[in-house]
Amino acid sequence: MQKYSFVYDIKTKVYFGAEQMIHLGEEVANYGNKVLFLYDGDYIKKNGIYDLVIDASRKYNFEIVEFTSIKPNPRHTDVQAGVDLCKKEHCNVILAVGGGSTIDSAKVISSCALLDAPVWDVVIGKVPTQGSLPLLTISTISATGSEMNTGGVISNLDTKDKQSLRRPSQRPRVTFLNPEYTFTVPKYQTACGTVDILCHAIETYFSDDEPMMLTDTFLEGLIRTVVHYGPIAYKDPQNEEARANLMWSAPWAINDFLRYDKRKTWSMHPFEHELSAFFDITHGLGLAILMPRYLRHVIDEKSLPRFRNLGIYAFDLDRNLEDQEIAEKVIKKIENLCYETFGLESHLSNLGITEEHFEEIAEKLATDHGFYTAGYRKMSKDELIELFNECL
Amino acid sequence: MQKYSFVYDIKTKVYFGAEQMIHLGEEVANYGNKVLFLYDGDYIKKNGIYDLVIDASRKYNFEIVEFTSIKPNPRHTDVQAGVDLCKKEHCNVILAVGGGSTIDSAKVISSCALLDAPVWDVVIGKVPTQGSLPLLTISTISATGSEMNTGGVISNLDTKDKQSLRRPSQRPRVTFLNPEYTFTVPKYQTACGTVDILCHAIETYFSDDEPMMLTDTFLEGLIRTVVHYGPIAYKDPQNEEARANLMWSAPWAINDFLRYDKRKTWSMHPFEHELSAFFDITHGLGLAILMPRYLRHVIDEKSLPRFRNLGIYAFDLDRNLEDQEIAEKVIKKIENLCYETFGLESHLSNLGITEEHFEEIAEKLATDHGFYTAGYRKMSKDELIELFNECL
Repeated sequence: MQKYSFVYDIKTKVYFGAEQMIHLGEEVANYGNKVLFLYDGDYIKKNGIYDLVIDASRKYNFEIVEFTSIKPNPRHTDVQAGVDLCKKEHCNVILAVGGGSTIDSAKVISSCALLDAPVWDVVIGKVPTQGSLPLLTISTISATGSEMNTGGVISNLDTKDKQSLRRPSQRPRVTFLNPEYTFTVPKYQTACGTVDILCHAIETYFSDDEPMMLTDTFLEGLIRTVVHYGPIAYKDPQNEEARANLMWSAPWAINDFLRYDKRKTWSMHPFEHELSAFFDITHGLGLAILMPRYLRHVIDEKSLPRFRNLGIYAFDLDRNLEDQEIAEKVIKKIENLCYETFGLESHLSNLGITEEHFEEIAEKLATDHGFYTAGYRKMSKDELIELFNECL
Repeated sequence: MQKYSFVYDIKTKVYFGAEQMIHLGEEVANYGNKVLFLYDGDYIKKNGIYDLVIDASRKYNFEIVEFTSIKPNPRHTDVQAGVDLCKKEHCNVILAVGGGSTIDSAKVISSCALLDAPVWDVVIGKVPTQGSLPLLTISTISATGSEMNTGGVISNLDTKDKQSLRRPSQRPRVTFLNPEYTFTVPKYQTACGTVDILCHAIETYFSDDEPMMLTDTFLEGLIRTVVHYGPIAYKDPQNEEARANLMWSAPWAINDFLRYDKRKTWSMHPFEHELSAFFDITHGLGLAILMPRYLRHVIDEKSLPRFRNLGIYAFDLDRNLEDQEIAEKVIKKIENLCYETFGLESHLSNLGITEEHFEEIAEKLATDHGFYTAGYRKMSKDELIELFNECL
């Protein structure tokens, strides 16, 4: 395949800022008149979103069917309930309000609502999709970037599987990003969300391709922005500048634009998905524990020039330092951000996790999902177990 | 108006790379069956584009009406001829192959073809637009970024006016960017195109707003990329890496994304448009002469922190330097790029231009287009004349 070859096609329309929320009703009505309305908690009745949706439905004459059963690390059974409701009520458009779990679930519902098949069969690719219902979103946390991309990740607790369904037709048609809605995001979620954005960018940055300098520089800038504003939003939750920058960074870290020239599979996310499928931990927390250890594992001749640029342009390190020193300082800065500034747990053992399932998880990554280990650096099953043990 | 408030809506689908050209026929056929086919020179019969279009028209059954009258700094009379032909032949889709002049003209044609009014009346806003015919483009030079944005600039030589018509409906639906098509761009055009991209980014960067750090970092990265690869493409025209990076930088420098949080009018482009409306010089060359002088004029307390970041992140300057020194070095680096590396002319007088019309031009900028002088720093008529004299 040719080196510089891709199709850019990101059609999500984004309304950014509080005053843009007035466009909600007209946009929903552009796509349908019966709305499956997903949201993930009563906080949207306090911050005005719920009333906004209800008012819009009256003004623009669309019906609303509420669905509120989605939990973090969303289960395929809850998503199935959403599909069943959507079909029963003949909804023709979906509005998802919340974070990644809600929007991811809404995407899978948007595809499965057009099929006669169990959700999990669709997610694992046994049943092909045939388009999706149009999806609009209102994001209430800066984290997964699901509000502008094509993928939805859901879990099967029976089989301890966490799988993603990616379809271009699932990309939200319209997304509302109002930084003020994130003023009330608790510190822990602000921390985990920031780590998630950071990890999306770093996974993409450490790609085993020959990437374009342009997209590399954008990734470095995005990381610099997130590392700068994450701590500010953490300490001062109503800081509009910080919340706005995090909110606009989240989708661009993972909406495909910066990844078109980087085709290789990610590493840390698949590892973390397996961990959280087994232990049901917060995604961002799992990443915070994994990321520094993983990065130490991949320091080598090939990665050092990437660490150097990351250090200089994203972490403001002195360009006169040696490559190895830069790599170590970058990792140290990530550790400081996660464990000191954000006070996140740094060891899996403190979450009650033991090495008991590591063999099984590594086996799964190395065989069932062989491609998962073909990210930036292919890891053997033994090295994976070693990495997980370092996380304990 | 709220600080962080904008609508992101950039729906151009981009096929990037030589192997993506196979999608041309199906994409044209998606939008119509009778194509106004604009191109700007017989070079497209040598590099394969012409045959590709003809073959696609046979395979996908669309008719082609050729139009080849567009020249650099396109005249409203030529654009009018395009509109007349488009209407007479009942074309329902436009394919523009070439650089900014061709694509800009195609945009104005796409709007005017739906109206019963002279082109210039539409351009100056006397007659409102009512949508546009769908436009597809194949870019053959990395410069104006017209291939992914909404604006078309055309000139009226009678009134010595250069005006832009910007309409969301004019944004190309599909754009093909094949770096190989730019391998044969002559050195002079490569230089002028690179200066144009650089200037788009710098104009946007020096905006009198409180911009978002995220988009600032992207602009810095884009400038670093362009400053790095411009000289490589200039010396080694078939360097794919350089051509690909320039080709992907061009649209992002001006497709609105990095400008949504920066609402103020540009400065150098309006100045240069007036200059080239009077003297018909190459746009990129005019910018190369203006840019360093303009930047020296705007060094002040407010701009120094911006020069600092630009110096560190885009021009790899030492962060220990004083702000003033960084600003001067940034400007010196731009001068070196334009006049030494690219060997572009550095004085208007060497192009046969005298101060004769400066009073008139400055008057026009300061009165007719008063807003033109409300860019990064408002300039009086006297300061404008001083600036133009420094360019002599």
